[in-house]
Amino acid sequence: MDDRKPRLLTGDRPTGPLHLGHLVGTLQSRVKLQDSHECFIIVADLHSLTTRSRRDEIARLPNHVRDVVLDMLSVGVDPSRSTIYLQSGVPAVYDIAILLQMLTPVARLSGLQSIQDMAVNAGLGDADVPLGLLGYPVLQAADILMANAELVPVGADNETHVTLARDIAEHFNDAYGRVFAVPQPTVSATPSLPGVNTVAGGAERKMSKSAGNAIWLKDTPEEVARKIRTLPGPAPGESDGAPLFRFAEAFLRDADELANLKAEYDRGAIGFAAVQDRVIEALEKILVPIRERRAEFAADKHRTEEIIVDGTITARKVAYETLGKVRDAMGLENLWSGLVHATQSRAEERKKPFYHQKS
Amino acid sequence: MDDRKPRLLTGDRPTGPLHLGHLVGTLQSRVKLQDSHECFIIVADLHSLTTRSRRDEIARLPNHVRDVVLDMLSVGVDPSRSTIYLQSGVPAVYDIAILLQMLTPVARLSGLQSIQDMAVNAGLGDADVPLGLLGYPVLQAADILMANAELVPVGADNETHVTLARDIAEHFNDAYGRVFAVPQPTVSATPSLPGVNTVAGGAERKMSKSAGNAIWLKDTPEEVARKIRTLPGPAPGESDGAPLFRFAEAFLRDADELANLKAEYDRGAIGFAAVQDRVIEALEKILVPIRERRAEFAADKHRTEEIIVDGTITARKVAYETLGKVRDAMGLENLWSGLVHATQSRAEERKKPFYHQKS
Repeated sequence: MDDRKPRLLTGDRPTGPLHLGHLVGTLQSRVKLQDSHECFIIVADLHSLTTRSRRDEIARLPNHVRDVVLDMLSVGVDPSRSTIYLQSGVPAVYDIAILLQMLTPVARLSGLQSIQDMAVNAGLGDADVPLGLLGYPVLQAADILMANAELVPVGADNETHVTLARDIAEHFNDAYGRVFAVPQPTVSATPSLPGVNTVAGGAERKMSKSAGNAIWLKDTPEEVARKIRTLPGPAPGESDGAPLFRFAEAFLRDADELANLKAEYDRGAIGFAAVQDRVIEALEKILVPIRERRAEFAADKHRTEEIIVDGTITARKVAYETLGKVRDAMGLENLWSGLVHATQSRAEERKKPFYHQKS
Repeated sequence: MDDRKPRLLTGDRPTGPLHLGHLVGTLQSRVKLQDSHECFIIVADLHSLTTRSRRDEIARLPNHVRDVVLDMLSVGVDPSRSTIYLQSGVPAVYDIAILLQMLTPVARLSGLQSIQDMAVNAGLGDADVPLGLLGYPVLQAADILMANAELVPVGADNETHVTLARDIAEHFNDAYGRVFAVPQPTVSATPSLPGVNTVAGGAERKMSKSAGNAIWLKDTPEEVARKIRTLPGPAPGESDGAPLFRFAEAFLRDADELANLKAEYDRGAIGFAAVQDRVIEALEKILVPIRERRAEFAADKHRTEEIIVDGTITARKVAYETLGKVRDAMGLENLWSGLVHATQSRAEERKKPFYHQKS
């Protein structure tokens, strides 16, 4: 028994900067989990290739990677406690993924709603879905299992993938001997945040990178205020569930204050502009320290890159160690090392003086 | 322009020793092609995992690998001209395969008869086909393309896979810039050899490793003779296409002699035992030098292993070089080296004396 903290794997695709939806959905809990867990935080650029493999899309990765890591650092991910790494920079993960593909039935993958949704969102017709997208959950399993992660906080859309990683781990451990920690998904209970630029009476859309309705973590106070003021007020008495009040619920930390605000609004004592003001004020309390940390990291030249490189080197060591165990358990290492040892002993034999040589 | 010979990739799965069917189907032409081509000969152990991933099946690989390579050497594959390598010992191939999976539509793979046949032969039901088997042609494409092979001699069952590799190469070169040589399949025109232990009037089966009807390259003269004598004689006048005469066609090198033998048999001048004798004699002319080379290599302790290790190290260099070009062309190398250069310049900056530091 060692007394290290249990390991956790989580992360993001580098498809652009992060927004308030990420903050309440995953980032806040990620920061807290650093106290109880050793965190591996993947910047999943290979995952982004499953739906964005064009040259111009890959050319945007350097900026996106820097953005997403700076966002993580600004919210309080601590590089002295968490390993932030670039997925494509860990060669052993490719090996593990290929080997796990040998053990994973296509039938477990082809019915997954998550993959179908990803294909639709990426505008891929049935004829265009790449093998990499079908195999995405196995690549994700390789990420999780290489790190021996026991806990994997995910959104509801990825829960089935962690379940698959768990099943692969259990199957592997049964078939070849225990190598992998068996990961457990933890699905975020946080409701998603609505987008801004809402039209009164229009269909509500979840805040997302692609929908043009996000408040970015790097937005200035002016941008944040302007975007919050696009949230219309519901009819008095109908504050429950209205986008503006969903923001209030997410960011007003005092339950009594929130209840009062809703009551005042519902009885017509205050208008929606006052609620917007209160949300902006609450948001700024959270965003000011985030902006300060961002400014510090951004001013420390190349510090973000150094954090990624250092983390990737750490992840490489862990991944090679796991790959060694995988190859050992399957019997592939025995195959290769048998050849190498025979070759070495031949070389040694041939270096011996003539009178020691046999035959 | 360099004047190196065009490169060729071919090889075998290490699923057991090789037999006469392999000799006439691929090995004889492989030996000849060494004069005109730089040969990469893959011992495709990862391919064998697509249908044989059980621990006990993998445990047989070391013997199978040694058998298959010794068979190749015994027929005249020349390690000073050909690179014989172990597929699983070339890590860059896993990387290239994962990247090519991002570019290959599932729809190109799921309809392939070859994959369905492999599944049936391996006793895999629809629910059991692993992703690795569906992705087998992409892994094969990674093998072919990493070696920049221009020529790929294959059996008819694998022609579609080389066509797929060609399409992947062309798509990659179009999308990211020219990296890969575009491979061409060469389908062996040699008819397959029937198996031995034939029952007169029974259904003819192709000689194969698994059917218990093979004459192994390593069989003794006595075993060869005994097996040939299991081939029944056809009715006189029906020599065309009869298994015994298919052997005569494959191994009697003189066309006149073959025509005479058939004519004599068909008019009843000689019996089937005489034909068997003639086939055995012809076979032994081919097998004697094979046995001699085998004995030489087998007596040279650990030479076979050394050849595989040396070849694998050569293949690693080639594969890493190709992977570097692939990552460069896609833009992934720029992503990683950008991070590394920033980190290095930060480290250098911090080593400068205080008065040189900025801000």
